[in-house]
Amino acid sequence: MGDLTESQILDLILPILRRSDSPDVELGPGDDSAVVRAPHGTFTVSTDVLVEGRHFRNEWSTGYDVGWRAAMQNLADAAAMGARPTALVVALVLPATTTLAWLADFARGVAGACERHGASVIGGDISSGDSIVVAVTVLGDNDGRPAVTRSGARAGDVIAVAGRLGWSAAGLAVCGRVLQVANENGPVPAQVRAVVDAYLRPEPAIAEGVSASTAHAMLDVSDGLVLDAQRMAEASGVSVDLADPLAASAYDAAILREVAAWWGVPEGDQPGLVSEWILSGGEDHAMVAAFAPDEVAEGFRPVGVVVESLAGSAGDVLVQGRRWERDSGWQHFAH
Amino acid sequence: MGDLTESQILDLILPILRRSDSPDVELGPGDDSAVVRAPHGTFTVSTDVLVEGRHFRNEWSTGYDVGWRAAMQNLADAAAMGARPTALVVALVLPATTTLAWLADFARGVAGACERHGASVIGGDISSGDSIVVAVTVLGDNDGRPAVTRSGARAGDVIAVAGRLGWSAAGLAVCGRVLQVANENGPVPAQVRAVVDAYLRPEPAIAEGVSASTAHAMLDVSDGLVLDAQRMAEASGVSVDLADPLAASAYDAAILREVAAWWGVPEGDQPGLVSEWILSGGEDHAMVAAFAPDEVAEGFRPVGVVVESLAGSAGDVLVQGRRWERDSGWQHFAH
Repeated sequence: MGDLTESQILDLILPILRRSDSPDVELGPGDDSAVVRAPHGTFTVSTDVLVEGRHFRNEWSTGYDVGWRAAMQNLADAAAMGARPTALVVALVLPATTTLAWLADFARGVAGACERHGASVIGGDISSGDSIVVAVTVLGDNDGRPAVTRSGARAGDVIAVAGRLGWSAAGLAVCGRVLQVANENGPVPAQVRAVVDAYLRPEPAIAEGVSASTAHAMLDVSDGLVLDAQRMAEASGVSVDLADPLAASAYDAAILREVAAWWGVPEGDQPGLVSEWILSGGEDHAMVAAFAPDEVAEGFRPVGVVVESLAGSAGDVLVQGRRWERDSGWQHFAH
Repeated sequence: MGDLTESQILDLILPILRRSDSPDVELGPGDDSAVVRAPHGTFTVSTDVLVEGRHFRNEWSTGYDVGWRAAMQNLADAAAMGARPTALVVALVLPATTTLAWLADFARGVAGACERHGASVIGGDISSGDSIVVAVTVLGDNDGRPAVTRSGARAGDVIAVAGRLGWSAAGLAVCGRVLQVANENGPVPAQVRAVVDAYLRPEPAIAEGVSASTAHAMLDVSDGLVLDAQRMAEASGVSVDLADPLAASAYDAAILREVAAWWGVPEGDQPGLVSEWILSGGEDHAMVAAFAPDEVAEGFRPVGVVVESLAGSAGDVLVQGRRWERDSGWQHFAH
């Protein structure tokens, strides 16, 4: 692709990305800026970056997967505010060796994720570089309702989760083995394929987040349920008691146990691994929110309660009665 | 920096970036999304990426320079719509070898550029990677006026420019030599220092763009006056006649001629090089706009006129009476 100009590249991908009919978009790609409507007078904005070799591997992820994931994790950041994602801009760094086929596939992945949730790609920038970097910024609209921050949880609230927990972490763990087995035409059970797909092309709980208008506080689980619950607790000045988060995610746990067994994990070690995936696995972008007990939104399952903090203990998370070690979970920069 | 977590890094740079008092910002950094006000019901959005080794060199640019430039070129993309830049989000990829001093310096550069133009940094993301990548997204507000696109130029309009032309291109050309001379404690004339500074820390014509409410069409000169005039002409279905763009930029030309002379360019070749810098040099982010002849905004100098296109010739640019070769100028991907 190194011999193409930026405008030739844009001519290829804009027709894939363009959605002409969104009422949110006043002016789409092609000018120095796009123009988006915000009829209720506010909008949300968030940015997230994916780096080749850190967040994905080209041996495992197709261009479609990378585009899908970059879009989805950003769409989830709008939904985590209770906002409907309206539009994305995409900044892309590509090595000169990237093929046009990869790029078109990437654009289809971005477009597919956006289409699923009614958002439009309205701008971007492309540069050459040593490895692939995808930086997406998402705009969202709360349609006149207040944005749901992470700081509004109150003692007595129910902590509830919408969406998958642990699938992506399990998929990452077994992805190499699955591709190897598949290459040798070996059998790969449906549950195992499902978690690998969840890792490659996550399905965040976006619709649930957007419609969680009764939530007092919410964020998306990007670094593990417990760590993200800790963040909510810290921001809200409370503590969180997750009495039995595994029982509340019995469906996830059953799938993950099958995956662990297929992977050859000894039976006695399976519950511990499943528990780690569910409590500390990120990247599925489930939504975790705090609700008044009688106002838990549709699609959310209770996993715990918000409690008063003792002096100096705001941000504590209890899991099955034990205090969780602070800040354990994914820490992007250190890994 | 490789042994720090993302939240430790954010603790360092957020105090540098935070501006607590902007009326445009309803919710700043720290949640899944920020919330920005758009009281007139629309906002502008644009994204631009800088890559180490492509857009800047660490031997030449400090962290401050990189932050300043990344912010300024984005702020210019809002101003090119006639929009007041309100807020930025910054996605950053850093090698583990990057020092905290560099990062703090980078944050000060972003903050300095934003402060100059009243914008706030309201969010970001940091990841590790092989080389530095900075992807900034800028939001802007037209305060109820229509956004100025590049497609509204009409035959009879005056083409006018605000801001510097050619300084950044000249600064890039001589930067290595200037640093070498400075290292040897040799004399560097003020004009030469000025163009190097313009390359390292551009000063786009942002205020002029924001207040150009009478413009029929506008864009910022990121790839050279002629190429960006061509883009306006193509989008507007007209042609552009730049009768004597060098005479209109006599101040720039005088500075650039001094630079060329200092650089050792033979006298007979200086006019050609100065002309190339002025007509094809990008990155100063001057504003080029089309106005009705009696409505040229303050700070803009006429450089030509808009003319009807002959059939099939929309987008032609005449320079001193000669048709300019299409698409000559900076083409980021190919370079």
